Amino acid sequence: MAAPGESVPPESATAPELDVAEWIGEPAPLSSLRGRVVLVETFQMLCPGCVRYGLPQAQKVHRMFPQVAVVGLHTVFEHHEVTGPEALKVFVAEFGIDFPVGVDRHVPGDPMPVTMRRYRLQGTPSTLVIDKAGRLRFAHLGALDDLGLGVLLGELLVAPEG
Amino acid sequence: MAAPGESVPPESATAPELDVAEWIGEPAPLSSLRGRVVLVETFQMLCPGCVRYGLPQAQKVHRMFPQVAVVGLHTVFEHHEVTGPEALKVFVAEFGIDFPVGVDRHVPGDPMPVTMRRYRLQGTPSTLVIDKAGRLRFAHLGALDDLGLGVLLGELLVAPEG
Amino acid sequence: MAAPGESVPPESATAPELDVAEWIGEPAPLSSLRGRVVLVETFQMLCPGCVRYGLPQAQKVHRMFPQVAVVGLHTVFEHHEVTGPEALKVFVAEFGIDFPVGVDRHVPGDPMPVTMRRYRLQGTPSTLVIDKAGRLRFAHLGALDDLGLGVLLGELLVAPEG
Amino acid sequence: MAAPGESVPPESATAPELDVAEWIGEPAPLSSLRGRVVLVETFQMLCPGCVRYGLPQAQKVHRMFPQVAVVGLHTVFEHHEVTGPEALKVFVAEFGIDFPVGVDRHVPGDPMPVTMRRYRLQGTPSTLVIDKAGRLRFAHLGALDDLGLGVLLGELLVAPEG
Repeated sequence: MAAPGESVPPESATAPELDVAEWIGEPAPLSSLRGRVVLVETFQMLCPGCVRYGLPQAQKVHRMFPQVAVVGLHTVFEHHEVTGPEALKVFVAEFGIDFPVGVDRHVPGDPMPVTMRRYRLQGTPSTLVIDKAGRLRFAHLGALDDLGLGVLLGELLVAPEG
Repeated sequence: MAAPGESVPPESATAPELDVAEWIGEPAPLSSLRGRVVLVETFQMLCPGCVRYGLPQAQKVHRMFPQVAVVGLHTVFEHHEVTGPEALKVFVAEFGIDFPVGVDRHVPGDPMPVTMRRYRLQGTPSTLVIDKAGRLRFAHLGALDDLGLGVLLGELLVAPEG
Repeated sequence: MAAPGESVPPESATAPELDVAEWIGEPAPLSSLRGRVVLVETFQMLCPGCVRYGLPQAQKVHRMFPQVAVVGLHTVFEHHEVTGPEALKVFVAEFGIDFPVGVDRHVPGDPMPVTMRRYRLQGTPSTLVIDKAGRLRFAHLGALDDLGLGVLLGELLVAPEG
Repeated sequence: MAAPGESVPPESATAPELDVAEWIGEPAPLSSLRGRVVLVETFQMLCPGCVRYGLPQAQKVHRMFPQVAVVGLHTVFEHHEVTGPEALKVFVAEFGIDFPVGVDRHVPGDPMPVTMRRYRLQGTPSTLVIDKAGRLRFAHLGALDDLGLGVLLGELLVAPEG
């Protein structure tokens, strides 16, 4: 990973809201998290990179840095028939995920869910980091180094809200 | 893990046949594998230890030591409604499992499948190792050290069939 | 590791200068690094935790975040006879350490070197983090999680100098 | 690593004796180990791959499989002036090495020690595996997979002595 400073666009847009059909755990729309640094971990429950790298890292951030709001987003773009909300609830319980997880909404005729399309995500796991003012500051597909993610989070945690 | 020599009962019984309702990949009943060392990896698709440790190790054995017959067995004892054969087929494809996987058979009224009960397995992942004569030589629940598993497999690979 | 925010004293003192008998690489006294975040990795060349955890992490910070000034300090408190500067130079070259390394000064009759005593370090590896104003913000003996270290560095990197 | 079966020459020669100038721990010449499987870990104390991979693996074999005779051999071919026996003794103690370690003998005018030259080793760490009959069965430079090493050791452990 490049230094986060290079990955963050100088003037980043406000992060679009998550379009969630159903929440597992407390609802956590981005609008309710303004003023906090947010890490959105997008995943699919049957994606190897998600269960091996993305989700464990999100859980580590959640456990070590409660001041960061960690939110999971289930962005299913294939195999919808076996990864519905009932299966996801079992997955969340079995894997011990204790941050809120939203189900990205599908609209008829489109295999790709709404939020995934909004953010132009290319696959899973994708990690999004949003600053206190609600701006998207980082988006990364694939495994992410702990040190680099830490530096980015630290930078955003001490920045003023404006 | 103790040295495999200590884990193996001196006079071990013939391993009971797997009772498989459906095979993904080529059927691989134990009766067809006599004369080969067999590693049976029992798992559930939504079990974290299985996706993180058990299955990757089984795949490594399969890739590095083709003379060992590696067989997966989906021993579902909970959450049956979301881990049926259709979900399992997606899982097997997404996780790149290229050894045969059998679905342990259920009988009405018993949440625990037939083979799991036959072998008195306590959970997943459980790794079973069977020698060329068809005798069960090792059964282990949980993560297993590569070095110890390797020594056991090496010992069985050079043993004569009788 | 606790969240760095809890480890950092609210009003921390200015970090004492390193007392270096000899530099390998460019001299890097703390006085010359004011205005930069500094990571001082104290180590002994024959300390297993240093070669396995401390030094590789320091090299990773040096490589990924050139804006952090990484400095090694060889704080020998035992086995002086075989870990002198000549041995250290070989070690630095063989392990590919490319940040400056200072040799902590010894005074006659004291097995513990001067800087180690100044900082009241309890052993090696100890990692020190100093902010842009030259204040000691973090001191840790032993292995250190990348995510936690990253958050601390990120916080200090964006803080103003004052 | 290829399957050990492919790495082992079909008719391997008797392993030449180690030419050891000094032993740290009990002397363990190969002649005294006939009838046992032997793992010789050749290393240099200031070689990163040795302290990170080779020696920890040798210690793991020593701890998990006491029936394997593990022997260290310090094959210094550079930096002799700072890696003499006194330095090596400190290293062995600090790294907790509790199998015998021999110092490969030097002869005047040759930077490469005698045993290293006898075995035509290309560098460190090199791992040698010798069977019960004293034949060299495996020689490998660099990191070695635990599973593959385990299979090789298991094969040799059950083989008859002849």
